[in-house]
Amino acid sequence: MPSLDLHTDVVTLTRALVDVESVSGNERTLADAVEAALSGLPHLQTGRFGNTVVARTSLSRAERVVVAGHLDTVPEAGNLPSRLVDDRIYGLGACDMKGGVAVALRLAATITEPVRDVTYVFYDCEEIEAEKNGLGRLARTRPEELTADFAVLMEPSSAQVEGGCQGTLRAEIVLPGKRAHSARAWMGANAIHAAAPVLTRLAEYKPRQVPVDGLVYREGLNAVGITGGVAGNVIPDECRVTVNYRFAPDRSEAEAFAHVQETFAGYVVELRDSAPAAAPGLDRPSAAAFVEALGVQPHPKFGWTDVARFAELGVPAVNYGPGESALAHTRDEYVEVAELHSCEDRMGAWLRG
Amino acid sequence: MPSLDLHTDVVTLTRALVDVESVSGNERTLADAVEAALSGLPHLQTGRFGNTVVARTSLSRAERVVVAGHLDTVPEAGNLPSRLVDDRIYGLGACDMKGGVAVALRLAATITEPVRDVTYVFYDCEEIEAEKNGLGRLARTRPEELTADFAVLMEPSSAQVEGGCQGTLRAEIVLPGKRAHSARAWMGANAIHAAAPVLTRLAEYKPRQVPVDGLVYREGLNAVGITGGVAGNVIPDECRVTVNYRFAPDRSEAEAFAHVQETFAGYVVELRDSAPAAAPGLDRPSAAAFVEALGVQPHPKFGWTDVARFAELGVPAVNYGPGESALAHTRDEYVEVAELHSCEDRMGAWLRG
Repeated sequence: MPSLDLHTDVVTLTRALVDVESVSGNERTLADAVEAALSGLPHLQTGRFGNTVVARTSLSRAERVVVAGHLDTVPEAGNLPSRLVDDRIYGLGACDMKGGVAVALRLAATITEPVRDVTYVFYDCEEIEAEKNGLGRLARTRPEELTADFAVLMEPSSAQVEGGCQGTLRAEIVLPGKRAHSARAWMGANAIHAAAPVLTRLAEYKPRQVPVDGLVYREGLNAVGITGGVAGNVIPDECRVTVNYRFAPDRSEAEAFAHVQETFAGYVVELRDSAPAAAPGLDRPSAAAFVEALGVQPHPKFGWTDVARFAELGVPAVNYGPGESALAHTRDEYVEVAELHSCEDRMGAWLRG
Repeated sequence: MPSLDLHTDVVTLTRALVDVESVSGNERTLADAVEAALSGLPHLQTGRFGNTVVARTSLSRAERVVVAGHLDTVPEAGNLPSRLVDDRIYGLGACDMKGGVAVALRLAATITEPVRDVTYVFYDCEEIEAEKNGLGRLARTRPEELTADFAVLMEPSSAQVEGGCQGTLRAEIVLPGKRAHSARAWMGANAIHAAAPVLTRLAEYKPRQVPVDGLVYREGLNAVGITGGVAGNVIPDECRVTVNYRFAPDRSEAEAFAHVQETFAGYVVELRDSAPAAAPGLDRPSAAAFVEALGVQPHPKFGWTDVARFAELGVPAVNYGPGESALAHTRDEYVEVAELHSCEDRMGAWLRG
């Protein structure tokens, strides 16, 4: 098991985290290392739930906050190990979100007497199907672990405070056809050709821009997958287009699915999974206090984040972390060294009071 | 080794051939049995080339014809052994093309003094990659074995004469894009959406119907596969559409590819594989004599067959055999007993003069 030194600087720690590959489903080694590092700290109580690690202070403060980050990454793309170039750390997960995890681990290790009690949560399976999400599992099975007045998810946000998040929904549009030998195509019906109007509708789709609590959310409806084909000499009898709808916090999951069904009226549309949006909640006192302490202007969050899981538990939550969200899931993702330091300093100041 | 009695009736012989499993690559046992049966006939000279068996008369006739069939079948589908139900023989390869092989073996055994010299060819690996095809191998390595004035391929054609065959070509149309997180789709470019005009063009494509030597060939251009997508939350940076173009004998392989490129002008089109068409050649005297002797109206052949290999050697060739081509490669393929007898009688009359 690799050993993590939480008392080294945040740059070295970020690189060490990147260098322990932890693609979704393969987080055990990193979770073991994180658990071992936190278990050695006397001011924290550490718990383990699958590949999710929770560590908490118990100082009987008036307020408790959660600081959370996911351990997993999207699949490797020839971007390991980490590289430090021009004050940027490159490598798989550097941006999304091992930089944020490094900041949280540094806070956990170095701030032994925070003015607010803190629950640190490091969880698995954020980048894949919603039902596997480690934070969601904890919320279902051990919601008391997440009880708090406020939560900060350290997702990449360019060290800006991002309120709420858009919902996300995946559905499959199923195009039927009839098999035939391709030398006698007129005996069959081509399911791939039948996808033409579906793709045209997607290409021409105009996404909404929706103001909620003063922040403007920008939606999107996109094909994220397509499959069809039986053999090189067979007219295919099925084609499936997987679409992903990112929706603003003014729509529920059911309303979002109804919109997708309406957009593809006349087609078979099968719901695959969905996760709700979360309103920004910046009107709640604890959220406002955090924004004020950091002295930054809040922005809307487009990507779905686990902020919505806290919203479902009644805990106001924001995204705040190092790394540019537009770089997440790209081959060349990186995190700025300056942002790592800035996030650690500001969060530290907030927790130290 | 199973023993084949070529002096039994064609129905019993067809069932015996079906019952010797000979899925492509596994033809040795059947080739051994065919070779042994033919070697015992004094009026034939028999040769063996891999799992291809050739037997020829040498009567110094003015004309030589080839009668050919493949020994292999597509994979088993719970359709062995053979069954005789309602005057149909069911079982793997019954239609494609052990019925035709049985007729050819019967002719070889019983017609000791044909008015035309005959070269019988029983070959392997017709149902798989073109480069393994036993007839193609013979054409490349021992073309003199196939020298003839005319050839009859006993592929299933419902006992109709099918002239020539269409060519076939596979190509991939590659749509580029730019990856981005699907929550920020405007940062990327969706390669699946980019396939919309390609599929529309395919759906609206009007295939040609081309008269060649009096037969009308019906072309087709179809998607036979589509793939695209990186992950459920990523704007895909590539989508590939595989198309199969079945083209009439008035076009060469190069012309066919040029047509596909022109149809998808502005797109990257990558050639995967192709096989040439063959003109019917019914204007050639030996072909015309065959058609006249059988007293049937010739039809165009849509599917690609090894007729094209003879065309490349300058030998006019037709498909003529028992079994319905639409049943080929189906679990429930069968051949009509009546067609077996009819094919044997007509071919026999032609060879006896």
